[in-house]
Formats: sequence, structure tokens, C-alpha cells
Amino acid sequence: MANKKLWGGRFQAPTSKEVDQFGASIYFDQLMADEDITCSLAHLHMLAKTHIIDQADADQIDAGLRDIQADLKKGNLHFSYENEDIHMNIESILTDRIGPVAGKLHTARSRNDQVAVDFHLYVKRRLPKVIGLLKGLMETLVTMAEQNVETIMPGYTHLQHAQPISYGHYLMAYYQMFKRDCERFEFNQHHTDMSPLGAAALAGTTFPIDREMTAKEIGFGQVYANSLDAVSDRDFALEFLSNASIMMMHLSRFCEEISMWASYEFNYIEISDAYTTGSSIMPQKKNPDMAELIRGKIGRVYGDLIGLLSTMKSLPLAYNKDLQEDKEGVFDVFNTIIPSIKIFTHMLQGISVKKQNMYDATTNDYSNATELADYLAAKGMPFRQAHGIVGKMVYDCIVKQINLQDLSIEELKQYSTLIDSDVYEDLKPETAVKRRNSLGGTGFAQVQKQIQAAKAELAE
Amino acid sequence: MANKKLWGGRFQAPTSKEVDQFGASIYFDQLMADEDITCSLAHLHMLAKTHIIDQADADQIDAGLRDIQADLKKGNLHFSYENEDIHMNIESILTDRIGPVAGKLHTARSRNDQVAVDFHLYVKRRLPKVIGLLKGLMETLVTMAEQNVETIMPGYTHLQHAQPISYGHYLMAYYQMFKRDCERFEFNQHHTDMSPLGAAALAGTTFPIDREMTAKEIGFGQVYANSLDAVSDRDFALEFLSNASIMMMHLSRFCEEISMWASYEFNYIEISDAYTTGSSIMPQKKNPDMAELIRGKIGRVYGDLIGLLSTMKSLPLAYNKDLQEDKEGVFDVFNTIIPSIKIFTHMLQGISVKKQNMYDATTNDYSNATELADYLAAKGMPFRQAHGIVGKMVYDCIVKQINLQDLSIEELKQYSTLIDSDVYEDLKPETAVKRRNSLGGTGFAQVQKQIQAAKAELAE
Amino acid sequence: MANKKLWGGRFQAPTSKEVDQFGASIYFDQLMADEDITCSLAHLHMLAKTHIIDQADADQIDAGLRDIQADLKKGNLHFSYENEDIHMNIESILTDRIGPVAGKLHTARSRNDQVAVDFHLYVKRRLPKVIGLLKGLMETLVTMAEQNVETIMPGYTHLQHAQPISYGHYLMAYYQMFKRDCERFEFNQHHTDMSPLGAAALAGTTFPIDREMTAKEIGFGQVYANSLDAVSDRDFALEFLSNASIMMMHLSRFCEEISMWASYEFNYIEISDAYTTGSSIMPQKKNPDMAELIRGKIGRVYGDLIGLLSTMKSLPLAYNKDLQEDKEGVFDVFNTIIPSIKIFTHMLQGISVKKQNMYDATTNDYSNATELADYLAAKGMPFRQAHGIVGKMVYDCIVKQINLQDLSIEELKQYSTLIDSDVYEDLKPETAVKRRNSLGGTGFAQVQKQIQAAKAELAE
Amino acid sequence: MANKKLWGGRFQAPTSKEVDQFGASIYFDQLMADEDITCSLAHLHMLAKTHIIDQADADQIDAGLRDIQADLKKGNLHFSYENEDIHMNIESILTDRIGPVAGKLHTARSRNDQVAVDFHLYVKRRLPKVIGLLKGLMETLVTMAEQNVETIMPGYTHLQHAQPISYGHYLMAYYQMFKRDCERFEFNQHHTDMSPLGAAALAGTTFPIDREMTAKEIGFGQVYANSLDAVSDRDFALEFLSNASIMMMHLSRFCEEISMWASYEFNYIEISDAYTTGSSIMPQKKNPDMAELIRGKIGRVYGDLIGLLSTMKSLPLAYNKDLQEDKEGVFDVFNTIIPSIKIFTHMLQGISVKKQNMYDATTNDYSNATELADYLAAKGMPFRQAHGIVGKMVYDCIVKQINLQDLSIEELKQYSTLIDSDVYEDLKPETAVKRRNSLGGTGFAQVQKQIQAAKAELAE
Repeated sequence: MANKKLWGGRFQAPTSKEVDQFGASIYFDQLMADEDITCSLAHLHMLAKTHIIDQADADQIDAGLRDIQADLKKGNLHFSYENEDIHMNIESILTDRIGPVAGKLHTARSRNDQVAVDFHLYVKRRLPKVIGLLKGLMETLVTMAEQNVETIMPGYTHLQHAQPISYGHYLMAYYQMFKRDCERFEFNQHHTDMSPLGAAALAGTTFPIDREMTAKEIGFGQVYANSLDAVSDRDFALEFLSNASIMMMHLSRFCEEISMWASYEFNYIEISDAYTTGSSIMPQKKNPDMAELIRGKIGRVYGDLIGLLSTMKSLPLAYNKDLQEDKEGVFDVFNTIIPSIKIFTHMLQGISVKKQNMYDATTNDYSNATELADYLAAKGMPFRQAHGIVGKMVYDCIVKQINLQDLSIEELKQYSTLIDSDVYEDLKPETAVKRRNSLGGTGFAQVQKQIQAAKAELAE
Repeated sequence: MANKKLWGGRFQAPTSKEVDQFGASIYFDQLMADEDITCSLAHLHMLAKTHIIDQADADQIDAGLRDIQADLKKGNLHFSYENEDIHMNIESILTDRIGPVAGKLHTARSRNDQVAVDFHLYVKRRLPKVIGLLKGLMETLVTMAEQNVETIMPGYTHLQHAQPISYGHYLMAYYQMFKRDCERFEFNQHHTDMSPLGAAALAGTTFPIDREMTAKEIGFGQVYANSLDAVSDRDFALEFLSNASIMMMHLSRFCEEISMWASYEFNYIEISDAYTTGSSIMPQKKNPDMAELIRGKIGRVYGDLIGLLSTMKSLPLAYNKDLQEDKEGVFDVFNTIIPSIKIFTHMLQGISVKKQNMYDATTNDYSNATELADYLAAKGMPFRQAHGIVGKMVYDCIVKQINLQDLSIEELKQYSTLIDSDVYEDLKPETAVKRRNSLGGTGFAQVQKQIQAAKAELAE
Repeated sequence: MANKKLWGGRFQAPTSKEVDQFGASIYFDQLMADEDITCSLAHLHMLAKTHIIDQADADQIDAGLRDIQADLKKGNLHFSYENEDIHMNIESILTDRIGPVAGKLHTARSRNDQVAVDFHLYVKRRLPKVIGLLKGLMETLVTMAEQNVETIMPGYTHLQHAQPISYGHYLMAYYQMFKRDCERFEFNQHHTDMSPLGAAALAGTTFPIDREMTAKEIGFGQVYANSLDAVSDRDFALEFLSNASIMMMHLSRFCEEISMWASYEFNYIEISDAYTTGSSIMPQKKNPDMAELIRGKIGRVYGDLIGLLSTMKSLPLAYNKDLQEDKEGVFDVFNTIIPSIKIFTHMLQGISVKKQNMYDATTNDYSNATELADYLAAKGMPFRQAHGIVGKMVYDCIVKQINLQDLSIEELKQYSTLIDSDVYEDLKPETAVKRRNSLGGTGFAQVQKQIQAAKAELAE
Repeated sequence: MANKKLWGGRFQAPTSKEVDQFGASIYFDQLMADEDITCSLAHLHMLAKTHIIDQADADQIDAGLRDIQADLKKGNLHFSYENEDIHMNIESILTDRIGPVAGKLHTARSRNDQVAVDFHLYVKRRLPKVIGLLKGLMETLVTMAEQNVETIMPGYTHLQHAQPISYGHYLMAYYQMFKRDCERFEFNQHHTDMSPLGAAALAGTTFPIDREMTAKEIGFGQVYANSLDAVSDRDFALEFLSNASIMMMHLSRFCEEISMWASYEFNYIEISDAYTTGSSIMPQKKNPDMAELIRGKIGRVYGDLIGLLSTMKSLPLAYNKDLQEDKEGVFDVFNTIIPSIKIFTHMLQGISVKKQNMYDATTNDYSNATELADYLAAKGMPFRQAHGIVGKMVYDCIVKQINLQDLSIEELKQYSTLIDSDVYEDLKPETAVKRRNSLGGTGFAQVQKQIQAAKAELAE
């Protein structure tokens, strides 16, 4: 019994059914159906323009493809694993509709460059979506920061109160992270915006094709310079996966803090009902599910990155079937990060900050100790010595269960005669924040400056 | 507007639709529908037995659940993301069918222990399938080895010919790897075969439940000793993912070798038409697609492992929404390794070995150089000195473009007078293989011994 | 110029110096120097016993090796990268000391089986250390649990107060995790306790060696059944790395909680001065550095796991130089987890729990809502309905800024006439905990039971 | 007993010795000693310029630091773990040398910004080294490609002969990969070239510092805009690790091919003696060790990437001790990729290509089948039909054990009357290569074009 595959001329026996099922990629690469038709149309127009095929044949194929594209939009196409992948499925549907002339479409190309061009286009079309959502998140952060320049909260290191800071300043720290993410995704465009079409199986083709014409019609800025590289390169996908991993890491940090701040113990924020959920058993529960879920989704993004890196290790040139494993991870990551950024942004917009709780925390926690050390250093004491004295004061206050500002001026002077009653002003959280006016610091004026710079950046 | 969720009593506003969609797990946890119903039935019977609910109510619920189970088998159930997960979907369907009495089923349990018990059962049911397929592969290897005890091939280190070996010996090396894989999956059962049911939300319950009864009905050998651990433990899943990763690593090594051996240059094997594929553009191609695809699928398995490890990092006790990300990777790995082992086994069975090509390669490659060094060492020359002399002989032969056995006895004696004409027998590949009769070596008798031992192991 | 390497007979030119430096493993494999000598001694004794070498030669070599071993202990050995690895370094030192007879030691073995046996022995010797430390940690947990059976704290899900639990119960949850870790490391012994020695380069040897004799002298329980497998298997190392990854994941969860509990906001514990550190700039800081550092070290352990998995992907049989990359990750993980477990245990022992703060938190948080729902369900109301009513009560209390137990009996009855004044007893945290007496639950009696079972396990 | 640490004022008990040892980073961060001193000098000059400290004090400190720097170069500095890290070690040495005035250096900064600025500078200094080595490799590839434009070899897909290609074309494919690597490392500079100095602990400082002045003196192009971000950002390190991972993936592919080509079976290349090694047991072995080792080192690079990603997951702002784990992986990757690229380049330069073997392989392998299909398609037959006919021809030739070009014109015409005797010219490998003249194809003219473009790029 012969092999009836489109490529089966050289085979005597058919492929096993389990091989057909296992080897097929149509289950997931049908997500690139529109990209496939778009790229086929460009290839077709080029074949006609360069007289590789007749205009009449081209017109027939063009009509057939547009027909299929219309059905795709309506959800009327049906694919089968026997036809392996989206390319063979569409060619097969085309043949059913317009007959053997459909076979001419595959002149001067191969599935190797076809899948590569489809995949590039898929990523190229979606990167701007990701960047746009990140910009929206950055705008939200700027808006919130502007409303909270003078909202005072504890600044943490080691999850211990370190120094009081502006909540607006805190928000702008995340602005910077997402800004770098945007820059990375923008750079990612550079290596995505290249057409591999025309590389054919691996070596180019003997037909007088015009690769720049197809690239231009599809919308690519450049063409790959080397055909072997064109069909075996997946750098653009790896860049995307590592950029997404870094971005999800940023989100995981933010989500971690939101989760803690919404706890009974912190009680610094209230997330809106619309972005929380309850428990099937405990009637009082209001869980920050979205923050947790987004944080948890870091696993799949990291996994998809290491997955493709592992698959590509040691692959000889040019195309190998292993490369079929390149797409699902990328699709999964787009489907993860797009809603993650969107929902995170909406959740953030619905958070109400309990300013009083935040402020109160900064007045009972010795986080003004640095002020005292700086006060002494400013009066000429070497900083190391000042640090030691204040450490001792903190310890004594802990024992007495009072705060630094509760010490009388006489008590203070026992630690150092350099201390005068102007010190009490320095010990207030708002003073501590306001005075941290070094470039990029949490001082109100500096936070305002960051906000203005951010607005200018976003307006570009 | 109130929140109509089953847990919505405490909420004023409904959850956002995007939260419902993003947070729902029904897309993938419906794969555990049968496990969910099975565990609910056991829970129900226990509730009745311990008089926590009335027998009459229990009978009604039992009938309802069996009804749903029957519909599930027929493919007649329809789930919706508004009901979040498989547990709420089934409870909701049950309520539709039998009314508010359905609500009694959720007495003394929580979704936290419910999802944990479903997931344990899912894995517990499928590990034997994996083990069974591996045993089938091991049997195939033993059968093939038995047919090839005296088939001689080049043994490689650094992908260079090292010493001639028995092809049967080579096959038995993989037997050992898959044997260890089996042992790991069997050990994996130990931590999977534990019922978390009855841990409730995190702390156990005030109802007089009988956890051992539910465990027994479902088929678990043990119950979790601590309720917090029961709802937050995913070790069994991580063990599975790392065992699968090691197993796929073994397959990737085997596939790599099959891919090379099927090349024009090696030309040591022919894979059957049924387990190879062609090219859409190059009519002569016959590609070892299955070997490549299985090799490539290592990426997703490694990725799923690192994914769950990443998700679980730093999670506080007990249940967090992050844990919802535990299942897809595990499902994906089962769906990857089950067909991978199956198809790999079938592909292997369809491989024909080109014995002459393998043998010829061992006679033109200086892989008998160790024999010569051993020959000299056996006659009393320190091995290091013998190694040096034979190295020089090899170099001289390369220059002359001849093999070691082509040197005349006079020429040989110029290198060492210890050499006599009995050396020629030693230089034959079959002698070299046969004489490597140390325990576990490639000598024919040793390979036979391995095969007999393997048969005994498989017969257990 | 000739190549003076021990293997250089066949080469005309020396290796490049940068190749010598880059290819050498002596930088790290010298950590296995004692293992190397131990295994060489066993090999030597076997060579003499089987008359492969003369007893007189063997005695000379034995004396030389013991001499070197003594110098190693004194720190008097000097290694050089020109001799590549620990094996060649020791052989070279031996040759310097006893002359060319040293060359006889390498009869009937290869560096391929030599490095494999050294590495197995290295891991085999250290696994019991890890298991011992884990048992010590488990004992600490049991001791602490015993002191805290009736210490009440908030139990969390989603980092929200869920239900009050016993702190002893919480500690016993971690006991279970580390118990599973122990079981995994014990299973790991199984595949480590196998001697590859005698596999020679890949195929066994023509000499009449006795592999079981060397295995026994070194202390291995089994020998590898297949020589190809013996030199290329690294499963035991991968098992170790994945077991260590899961164990570090457990530690990361515990450290996360300790870090939160030590915060100003939680204020549930005080870590001893000896296990915290300060800040170079902020005099008041007392940071839970050890908890953070151990949590952070998860990265290198996960990384070492994925590193070896990646390296092994697609390697053809048998030995390839890639395998040289197998050891550093394993060494690094031993050097990470041994102090991590030790220091974590000591830190834990020095933690003082602020019981009152923990208790107070359980009385102001609606975490007794489940009690109320269970109360209603026990009186016959379907659980779902009870859940809804209590959810409404919680909401009303939040608005009024009171707790559930602050509602008068009249107010309570307005929600359901099933409520009587016996409900107030149920609403107390200690009642809630005590009554969760289901198997493995947080009820005091259950926690005691867990503790007794753990003591019995540890005493085995 | 008091705590004598520089930060110990607030502590009553000293830290445990094991904590000092485990928590110290001096073991590895001493690699940044020069960066630390360089950044301290810049900070000092700024403190004096802004009158935060006296010029006289500054001069004393300046002299002390330069003294230390000189000793560092001579290898005369000794560090101790009691002083934790490189910052405290140097401050402590400085204090020993110039007394308590040394304490003034730490005014207006913290170890949090200090370690961040050192680490940025470390990476910033070494990225150009990596880029330079990659450019050297690219130049080598161009030189080799120029010598091999018309060297014909089999082009592979699925490791099966696909179509004949130019070896120069093959080399230029790798040129493209390393070019993208360079672009990524150049982009990496963008986020590395930012000074965090002056962010102090997390919030900036109350002292009137000039961050732009220190940035400029150290050589940074920008300053961080937000102090919280400045001390907690490690994006630049993650970018480096993911760029290095992609680069190592490219090297692993190249090494894989070199390893195969050096095999007995392929026999396409000879690696120079200087870049190969032998075997301790098999005298004939000449192993491509460097190719294998570089390929194997991918594991540690992937591992270091996933390591830092894992460590950073879920870390709250700002500095946490977990971040101390950021550096070793980055140091390890620099120490891996710098020699890897260098040695790979040298190895490549020493490879001799066996052109005849490559060419011969293209004439016995049916890799001219596409030519025949294209020939028919060019004569108007739909490509699909042509593909089928040629597949049949290939099958018949395999049976007859002849090549396509061995068929007589009469035999050819039996398959299609479109075939004429001009077909024989098309079936020659050199014709097949030459005619693949589409943009980026393997045609000689196209390869020349790529080479000229590359030369222009490298000359920039």
C-alpha cells in the first residue's frame, strides 16, 4: 500500500496512524492560520510578478486563498491531523476547492521557510500589544504616584522597616522596571522583523524569486541574509521568552507585596471586590487571588523559556523536527502575559490605600534611626561612630518600649552632647522623607521630578 | 449588585468578568472530572456512614452524582468558566438536578482538600500506565539484544570509535536506564498514594469524619498525617516531573543516536517507512521525524519541571492560588511521555540494522589499538609504555593509510619484540569483543548473562 | 615537537596551553582526591589478587598510594592543570615517587570508569550527612511542636486568616515535608550505591578482573550490570539534584514565613541576635539574613539541576567530555544544603514566639466564621446556605467594625433562629482549634498524636 | 558579650560564627575589589567637592584607598570572612591604616548602593571583552567562508542530506547568529551603563550629594532615576545571562556539528592536534574534547540564568539578602563564555576541511532530487505532481542501487516526457549550488555578497 502523503512518492508504506497523530502540529499551529494565508498571498503575488507562475493561475489561487481566509474569520474551517500542519491543511483545502493548480503555490518555497515566516509574523503582530499594555500599566502607575507623592509608608529592606518613604516613590520604582521591559520588547522587534521567506528548504531556490517584495507585502522591515540561518533561527522567540520572564519576575515582586499588604497584619490596602474572590468553606475570606495567580504564572513562563533553550541545544543545521516544539511555549506566554498585565493594571486601579495605617507604622518603628545618625554625622561625628551610638539608643528604647522621639532632650544629650532640640523635627517621618532630596531619592520634590519625566516619556 | 458566587455572601460587588475568566481552571481541570466524582462519592458515603448527613439525603446525592458520571462518559456534560473549576461545576450541575440538598455534599470538606485528592488520584492512576509502557520498551530491548548478541558495531567515546562492541550490549545499556526510570516511578507511587481528603480548608474539620474510610474507598494506601501539609504538598507532582525529565533525557540520548545512525554517513540502520516522514519540497527525503520530535519534547518536560519548582518557591502555607498552576504541567508531561515511550518502542521494533556496515566500520578504524596495548601489557610491559608504543604505531599507519592488522609481523616486531604472530587473532573485532568478558563487559557471554538477568527481572 | 601527555603517542603536536587550562578538571575534581586513592587501592588489591599484576609490584604501588594519601590529609599535595585531572595528577605523583611501575596501576581500567567510581563514592559518602542533618531538623521541629501544642495562631490560606490553628500543628506540617525529603535521599542511595569500576573505557576489559571484589572493598552494595551504562550514567547525580531542589523549596517556604513573621507588621517571632544581622547605615535594623539567604540559595540549586539536565540532553553513548560538567553542580549543592539545613535548624532553635500576639490576632479577624457555618450545618441547614448567611454576617460586622462574637444573641437570631447562646463557646479560637479533631487536624489531641508518631519514627 | 560588628550597636549578642561564615560574600565578591575601590574614590571626591566632608579628610582617605589599590594589584591584600564582604573588608583595612577618619567615607551611602554600583561596573567593564571576542570569531568565519565559497558539501535537514550547499554559505549562517549575539550584548550595555550610587540604603540621602558627578567619574552614561529601583534592580544581570544562554546555544549547535564531522563516519574535517586530546587507555583516540566541553558548558550557563530568575521571584522591595546570590552566576558565566569563544575560534582556525569527502557525499545521495522536481516544475508541471514523480524515481533508484544521474535519458523519459538531456547538467551538485541564486541562497554569487556585506559590517 502506497503512502498518499503530499510528500509520499518515495515511500512504499503509509505512516503509522500514531505517527500522524503525534507528529501533527495542527492542534496548535492553527493559531497561525491567518499568518499562513497572509504570507501565502504575498508569496503568490511575487510568483506571478516574477512570472514564475502564470497570472491566470495566480488569480485562481488568490481567489481560493481569500475564500479560505473569509471562512477562517467566520470560524468555518475544519482542520485534520492527517494533513499534519496548518500549511498542508490550507494547501489541501485549497486543492479541494480549486483543483491541482493549487500545487503551484508551493513553487519556490518549503514548509521550512513557510513555518518560519508565519511564526515571525505571529510574534511581530503581538509584541506591540504587549508593549501597549505595559505602557498602560506605566500610565496607571504615574497617575497613582501623582496622587500619592506625600503619602508616607515604611520603606523596607529585608522586609524590615528601613526608612520612611513616599508611596508615590514606591510606585515609580515599578514604573522604571516596566519601562525597561518595554525597551526590551522593543529591541525584540528588531530580530523579529525579518522575513525568512524564500530561504526555501535551507539553501534558497533556483527560481528567480523576489524576497524583498514578499517581505514588503507582509510588512517586514528586513530579510534574512542567509538561508540556512533563516530556517533554523529561533533567537527572536528566545528573546521574547527571556524578556517575558524578566517582566513576570517584576510582576511577581509587585504581587508578593500586594498579597502581603492585603493581609490582616499589614492592612495597608483594600483590593476591590471585583478583583478578589471568596472561599467555598470559610465565609469571611476575601482573597487576593489575582495577585497570587499572576505570581504563580511565573512558573510557566520560566518553564517555557528553559523549554525552548533545552530543545535548541545541540541541534545541527538546518531544520530538524525538534523545532516544531518552538511554538506552543511562545503562544502560551503571549496568552499568559497579555491577560496578566491587563488584569494586574485593573486590579491596581481598584486598590484603595489605607494611608493612616501606613503612616502610623512609620512612627512606631525606629525607622528614624538613620536620621539621628545623619544628624550626628552632619555635626562632624564620623558616621561609623554615630551609627554605633544610635544603635545603642535603639536598644535602650526597645527595652523601655518607647520610640526614639519619646526620649527627652536630656536623655538624648546623655548619648551625645551634639544633640540639640532641633533633632525632634528630624525625627518626624515627613521630615525624613522630604529631606531625602538627592537625585532619585524619595524626597517629595524628587518624586515630582520623576513623575514629570515619566509623563514626558509616555507622551513621546 | 450582590455577588452571586457560591462563596459570595460577604461581597458587595460581583467579580469582574475578566477575573472570572482568568482565574477559572475549568479549561484544564475538567480532565479530572472522573476523579472529582469518584472522590465525591467516597466522601458522600463516609458522610452518611458517620451520620453527618442523613442516609436519605446521601442516596439522593449519590444518584445525582452517578447520573453526572454517566453523562461524563457519554461526553454530555457542559462546563462553564463562571463556575470556576471542576468542583464548583459539578456541584452546580448537581444542584440543578437535585436541588439544594446538593449543598450537603460539601459538608466537612473544602476545595483545598478536594483539588488535592483529585490531583493525587489523577497521578496515581496514570503512573502504572507509564511504568507499563517502560516495561514494554524494556522487553523490546531484551528481544532485540537477544537477536544481536554477536552483532558487532563500533563502540564510541567522544563520538570517536573506541573499541568494537556487541550491538546487543549497547541495547542492554538502555535497558538499564529504563529500569532505573521504572524504579523511580514506582517510588513516586509512595508519595502519591496518600489521601489528603478530610484536611478541609487547612485545619481539619469539627465533623466526625472518617478519613481512612474515604481513602480506602478511593483506593489510597495511606492518609496524610497533617492537614496543613495535605493541602499544600505537591512533592508527588515534582517527583513525577523530575522522574519524567530524567527519563526523557535517556530517550533524547537514544534518539540522538538513532538520528545519527540513520544518516547517509553512518548508514547503520533503516527506519521503517511507517515511522519516518518525507519533505514537502525534497522528493528523496526520508526523515527520522519521530526520533527528532521525541528528542525535542525534552524541552517541555524540563520546562514543566522548572515551572512547578519556580511556582512553589517561597509560597507560605497553606493553599495559595499560585498552586492552581500545578496541574497543566503535569497533564502535559503525561500527554508527552505516554505517546513518546509508545511510539519510540514501535519505531525501535521497526528498525532494521545494517550489520555489515557496522562490522566493516570496526575493521578500518584502529579501534583494535587497545587490544595491542593490552597484548603488550599482558606480556609484562607497563601499560603506560605499551600505550605509548601503540600510539606511535597508529600514527605511522595513518601516514601509510593502512590498518594495524595490515602490518607484517616483521614490522610489528620493530615496535616491540614482545609481539608474536598470535597478535593477529587479537586484532580481529570479534576477538576483541568476545574477550571483554569481565562482569558487565561486552563479551558475548556477559551480554547473554545480562539478557537472562533482564528476563528474570521482567518476569517478576 | 611531540606531545608528552600520558596519552600522547599518536600525536605529533602538543596540545595548546589554553586547551590544557580550559580542559583541566583538577580545579574542582581534587575534592575527590581521597575517593580517587581509595578506589585505586581497591583496584590495586584486586589486580594483585587476580594475578593481573605481581604482588611485589602491587606492594610497591600500595605503599606509594598510602604515602600520597597521608600527604593529602596533611595538605601537602600539589596538583597541576598540566596533568588535567585528579586521576592523572595522582598517577603522575605516584610515578615521581616509585617510578614506571606506577604505570601498572592503570591496567584494566580507564579514566572513564575511574571518574565514575570516584563520583559515586563522593555522593555515597555525603548523602548520610544530609539525611542526618534533616533528621536533626525534624527532631527540633518535634521538640518545638511539643512545647506549642496549645499555642494558638492564625492559620492562613491566600495569606489571609482562614481558621485558628495550633502552632505545634504548623511545625508538624514541616516535619512531614522534611520526612519526605529524607525518604527521597534514602532512595537516592539505591542508585548511588553501585560500582562502575571495571567498566574500563566503555566495554569492559580482557583482563580477568573481579569487579565484585573492588566494589566490596570500597563499600558498594552492587555493581553496574552493563559497562556502557556504568560509564555514562549520571542518574544518581540528577536524583540528588532534584531531591535537593524539592528540599530547598520546602526551606524557601519556611524561610518566607519566618521573614514575614519577624516583620514589624506580623511581629509573631523574635530571632536571636546570633542569627540576625544589622545594617551598615540604619542603626535600628535587625535583619533575618539567614532566612533570606537560605531562601535565595534556591536559585543555585534549581540552576544546578537544570544545568546537568541540559548538559546530558542528547549525549550519545558512552563517555563524552561534556560529562566533565557533571561534578561542580553536585559539589555546589552539597556545599549549599549542608550548611543551609544546619544553620536553619540552629536559627529555628533560637526563635522565641510571641504567643500573645499570635493569639490576639485570632480574636479580631473573623477567622471563626467557619465555626458559625459549621454550627448551622450541624443543626441541619445545608452547608451552602449556612455559608451564605455567615458571609452576610461578616460583611455587616465589618461595616460596624465589630467581631462576630460581639453580636448579641438577639442580633444573631435575626440571621437564623437555629442559633442559640451555646454558639459563643464555638466562636472562641481555642474551641475552634480543639474541636478540629479529625485525623491529621489541628485539634490538640491530633497534634499530640502526630508528635508521638514522629517520635516513634525518629527513634527507629 | 556585645556585638563588635560595624553595625552592631543595637545588638546584645554577637552573631554566631557559622552565620558569619555562611553569610559572608567575601569568598567571591573580592573579584570586584578593584571596582569597589574605583567607586569609593569617586564617591569620596564627590563628598569633598560638595563639602559633605573636609578636603583634608578626603585627601587622607584618598591616599589610603590608593595605597590599598596598589596592594591589590600586587596581590598583597588579605580578606577575612569576619568582615563579611568586599566593602567592609576594604573599609576595615582602610581604618587599620588611617584610623577613624576612614569612617567618613561611608557618609551618604549604604552597602546596598555600593554593591549595586560595583556589580554594574564589573559587568560594564567585561561586556566589551565578550563583544570583541565574538567579532574575532565573526572575522574568522568570514575569512574561512571566503576560502570556501565553492567548497561543496551536503546541506542537511533532519540530519539527512537535503541539497548540496556551499561550505562558505554554511559558515556564514553562524556569522549571522554571532552577529545577533553581539547586538544583544550591545543592547545589554544600555541597562548596565547606569549608576545606582547615591541611592543609599533605599531612599536616597539627606546629604547634598551629586550623583551625576560620581557616575561621570566612574564612567557611567546615566544614573538610576529611582533609588528603590537602583538598589533592587538586577535586570542588567538577567539580560546578560539570557544573552549568554542564547550565545552558548549557538556554540552548542556548531560544536555538535564539529563533533559529528570529526567522526570516522562523516570524516569531513581534521581538527589540529593542538585542539584535541587522547585517551588514557585507547592509544588510537583523538578526541574533539574542546567541542564537547564547550557544548557541555551550556548547562552551567542555562543553570545560572534559571538560578537568578528563581532567586529574584517574589522578592519584595528593596534590598533582601537573597540578592547576594546574584553575583556568582554572573562571574561564572563570564569565566565560561570568554574562554569558550576564544578557544572555539582558535579550534576553528585549526580545522582542515576534507573537501573531496564532502563533495563525494553530494554525488551519491539523491540530494539532487529537488533539482529534478524544479526542472519539471519549470517546464510547467505543478510542483506537487513533479514531487511525486521524482519521489518514485528515487525509490526505483534505491532498489537498483544507482543514482538519479545514472538513469539513461530513455529511462528518465519514461517518468516524464518533459525531461530532456539538458537535465544532466542540472543534476550536478555544483550546478545545483550555483543556481540557488535567490537572495541569501547558497549560490556562489550570493555567498560572495554575504561575505562582502559582512566585511563592511565588521569594518564599521
